[in-house]
Amino acid sequence: MSDLAAFYDQHEKTILHDFNTFLRFQSISSEPEYKGQVRSCADWLAAYVEQLGLKVEYWESEGHPVLFAEDMSAGPDKPTVLIYNHYDVQPVDPLELWESPPFEPQVRGGEIFARGAQDNKGQCFYVLQTIRALKELGGLPVNIKLCIEGEEECGSPALTHLVKIKAERLRADYLLIVDVGIKGSQQPAIGLSVRGLVALDVHCRGSHTDLHSGVHGGIVFNPIHALVQILTSLRDSEGKIVVPGFYEGIQELTPVQKAQLDLSFDAQEYFREAGGSATGGERHLPPLERAGLRPTIEVNGINGGYTGNGVKTVIPAVASAKLTCRLVPEMDPEATAQKVATYLKMQAPDGIEVTTHIHPGKGRAVRTQPGSKLVKAAAQSYEAVFNKPCSYILDGGSIPISAELRAASGAEILFMGMGLSGDKIHAPNEHFGLDRLRKGFLVLANTLRRLG
Amino acid sequence: MSDLAAFYDQHEKTILHDFNTFLRFQSISSEPEYKGQVRSCADWLAAYVEQLGLKVEYWESEGHPVLFAEDMSAGPDKPTVLIYNHYDVQPVDPLELWESPPFEPQVRGGEIFARGAQDNKGQCFYVLQTIRALKELGGLPVNIKLCIEGEEECGSPALTHLVKIKAERLRADYLLIVDVGIKGSQQPAIGLSVRGLVALDVHCRGSHTDLHSGVHGGIVFNPIHALVQILTSLRDSEGKIVVPGFYEGIQELTPVQKAQLDLSFDAQEYFREAGGSATGGERHLPPLERAGLRPTIEVNGINGGYTGNGVKTVIPAVASAKLTCRLVPEMDPEATAQKVATYLKMQAPDGIEVTTHIHPGKGRAVRTQPGSKLVKAAAQSYEAVFNKPCSYILDGGSIPISAELRAASGAEILFMGMGLSGDKIHAPNEHFGLDRLRKGFLVLANTLRRLG
Repeated sequence: MSDLAAFYDQHEKTILHDFNTFLRFQSISSEPEYKGQVRSCADWLAAYVEQLGLKVEYWESEGHPVLFAEDMSAGPDKPTVLIYNHYDVQPVDPLELWESPPFEPQVRGGEIFARGAQDNKGQCFYVLQTIRALKELGGLPVNIKLCIEGEEECGSPALTHLVKIKAERLRADYLLIVDVGIKGSQQPAIGLSVRGLVALDVHCRGSHTDLHSGVHGGIVFNPIHALVQILTSLRDSEGKIVVPGFYEGIQELTPVQKAQLDLSFDAQEYFREAGGSATGGERHLPPLERAGLRPTIEVNGINGGYTGNGVKTVIPAVASAKLTCRLVPEMDPEATAQKVATYLKMQAPDGIEVTTHIHPGKGRAVRTQPGSKLVKAAAQSYEAVFNKPCSYILDGGSIPISAELRAASGAEILFMGMGLSGDKIHAPNEHFGLDRLRKGFLVLANTLRRLG
Repeated sequence: MSDLAAFYDQHEKTILHDFNTFLRFQSISSEPEYKGQVRSCADWLAAYVEQLGLKVEYWESEGHPVLFAEDMSAGPDKPTVLIYNHYDVQPVDPLELWESPPFEPQVRGGEIFARGAQDNKGQCFYVLQTIRALKELGGLPVNIKLCIEGEEECGSPALTHLVKIKAERLRADYLLIVDVGIKGSQQPAIGLSVRGLVALDVHCRGSHTDLHSGVHGGIVFNPIHALVQILTSLRDSEGKIVVPGFYEGIQELTPVQKAQLDLSFDAQEYFREAGGSATGGERHLPPLERAGLRPTIEVNGINGGYTGNGVKTVIPAVASAKLTCRLVPEMDPEATAQKVATYLKMQAPDGIEVTTHIHPGKGRAVRTQPGSKLVKAAAQSYEAVFNKPCSYILDGGSIPISAELRAASGAEILFMGMGLSGDKIHAPNEHFGLDRLRKGFLVLANTLRRLG
């Protein structure tokens, strides 16, 4: 492994320079006005991968392109590893809370601050450096396929469609989803699962137009009152979701299976990193079970009426909320969203019309078992780089495409990454440690050598 | 009265021209960026009133100026009538729902569409025409004082302060608050009350920063979940407010008192005009009792998290709502707001910090009794102009300053106006009938003659 470390240290300056270039693209996939920036990012990235000696294909669709690249030079006797990343990022609002502009990367205290610094440009970038280094240090030990999409943050609609058409090209022995995290900065871990995802909006309409809250207050049903009442009705007082059938079919892990997982949780450490208390969700369960082994419904946004300065005495015509459900493997995204939508509509009070919209871009949950050659190779690599035992953890997040990529590729799947829960992904001041960029490079290169 | 009608018809063209000029000022008092426009409106209005032959004073404060004008030419034997109006208007959002720009008045089907067309520039404008006509047609029958403020839509903070200092100047026998409505376009009515008003904001904070809803969903308490739960807890299933002491001390009207009021309500007519159903508030009570004789809490705005297009998987750090309470005469605004704020804070779930802010600019409710010379003069005038019996109604809205103006002036108070519940005041497409501009002029002029 010393050749890899030496390679990284020797090239660190150009690596960081190129990483900064990657971070400057405002590749926000969910907002139409950034379409040009997403495309520019894809073009730059394609050129960068070509320069590493891989053939790059644009897989086009209605949305943002998927970049596919391969290097089969290891030969037919060697396994093929498909690596998944994404080059798109989340929106940046509330912009005023960023300490430095989200698309002008800045290093402070060994951490690089930028939108996408971790999720997923940082993780994507050490993957590329791994390929580069292995090729220069004697050749790739395995055949490599890269699938780097531009719509992960809006539910992967294009890739969801493309995996079916391109299944033959995606075929591989191993599938590495490099978009998750470790337990702590000195605690290596492998993610055995991600949750599924489905999103829906709910709208409550009271009247045809906004009304004066004095003249009409007490007469009409305020749609904000309806919305808050409907959203509150999703949960009981213990935080359990009461939508009929929501938890239907969910299989609990056996005590033996649970024992293999690191579900330890330090509330103080969590508060320090996340800035919040672990008082949400199904409160009778341990925090990491709630986020890893259980489904949730979170309201991601709510909006209605006047929200500016001062006072406006209005009863709005409409109030709306945006919801996402996180799913466990037994749950079908569409069916779950339908159950939630039906329940929300049934809660409509008299005089209020409730409508829902289920977003495209859903994903099933994926959960793998420890013990295979792939998991062992990765665990040993983490242990070698960190000099610490590697634990098995669950990621509460979602990589909507992972279940479909696994099916299309026929590969054994593994979630890898260098994220930490305090990285503020999807939030202001997202950051990633430069030490973790280097360690990610070393772990992945080491894993690929062990698989070769 | 025929001389008045002839005067109006003869001058209608210039009246409408000047009214259009008045409506074009973007005198939105609650938004600091319109401060210059509010001032321009005041300046134009002051010049207009001077031109009628009244001496105008600017009563300055930190906010927007109050215009005070008087004409005591009727002499000490005649009563003095203080007339209240306001030249400020509500904000205009959601702007996209306006069929014509809010500050470019347009007449469609005999109605003039503009922000402020009714509330209160329209009503203010026929007051000015009344003074002009009476002066030209033989002189004012009563002494007149005009008080036209620029902060009614943000709670009258300046005038609340000024009424105490200027009490001597405001002294009058009768106080006409010309800012309310009639029962129907062919149904004259006098408003016997307005409700009091107090506004407060509530903020729920969960974490220091926005969090990823996958990684943290099920662990932290989402502040949107807390906010909707807290707001829902304000009411029981029948729409009754459960804040301790909220209804304390409220005296019910006697059956005899109620019988004097027109509380008839046509649900179909209401739906046609307001575009909503009468299903809100305390549902066991008749609709117009709910709005006229009972206090309410309405959420005027709610905001938290991501509310743009598509999906953003975030748990926001903060979620907020804006509330107003409408009050009946027995309720103190500050004390009521404190009760609500205390209750909201007590509902805070573990892990959520709830803070509140009570806005300045509160007002007590005012309710008057029918039977006096003033009420009779107004009722007879309405009946003469409409050729229909005049009924007594309750206005659910608030004119925060009315209680204080009554106290400062020592006058008997009456609420008059030509508004209709379908005028969309405080909403997109506010409008006022040109026929009502003329009738308002006739009713007021007739009332003043009867008082003289």
